[in-house]
Amino acid sequence: MLDQAADLDRVFHALADPGRRVMVVRLSQGPASVSELGRPLAMSLAAVLQHVQVLEASGLVRTQKTGRTRTCSINPAALRSAESWIAGRRTLWERRLDRLGDYLAGTAGPGPAGTRTQKSDPSKEAR
Amino acid sequence: MLDQAADLDRVFHALADPGRRVMVVRLSQGPASVSELGRPLAMSLAAVLQHVQVLEASGLVRTQKTGRTRTCSINPAALRSAESWIAGRRTLWERRLDRLGDYLAGTAGPGPAGTRTQKSDPSKEAR
Repeated sequence: MLDQAADLDRVFHALADPGRRVMVVRLSQGPASVSELGRPLAMSLAAVLQHVQVLEASGLVRTQKTGRTRTCSINPAALRSAESWIAGRRTLWERRLDRLGDYLAGTAGPGPAGTRTQKSDPSKEAR
Repeated sequence: MLDQAADLDRVFHALADPGRRVMVVRLSQGPASVSELGRPLAMSLAAVLQHVQVLEASGLVRTQKTGRTRTCSINPAALRSAESWIAGRRTLWERRLDRLGDYLAGTAGPGPAGTRTQKSDPSKEAR
């Protein structure tokens, strides 16, 4: 649990930088070398390497050195863990709203039989 | 576009702290006062307030002051924008894998007519 929290710290920290997000966008289209990753960014190769190290430490990116070229690729598991954490919170909040809606519909006063609002469609929670 | 990038910077930065994530978890269950938010965390009220300010600046949390109590609530739109960004990258990566699978199936050599692997089920991309 502690390790998972530390992982999320690192993943969200890595994603908080616009340059690193540009790198993740590039890598989601396929592996790339460090110099390819730096091409669209106005920064030195040393700065690009530092960002790659932050991405690698977070688990978002894996790198492999072949000869003089370091190739980077995305690790979807780290993306998924961050996405799941956010989706879990959002779903909890939406369920609470649904329950509140049900409660308000139930206390809106007695109407004709059969007109009470039905429980909201559970499929909506999957959006 | 620039504003959206700045927003994501702030949202991911806000989520990179374990104490702030505890606050977001609490708020996804319903609104809470600043002192309620700080209760499970071993920190001063001043520190709690600072974290609340970071969450508010990111757009993840809205606050409203009534008398002497500041009530915090979640803003699902900010959660959704961060979730969508991550999901977009992950989906792109998975589609690339699917295309690679299709390509490899197509180049595995000529088999009997009709046995070529079908295009992968698009519904799988929604998982």
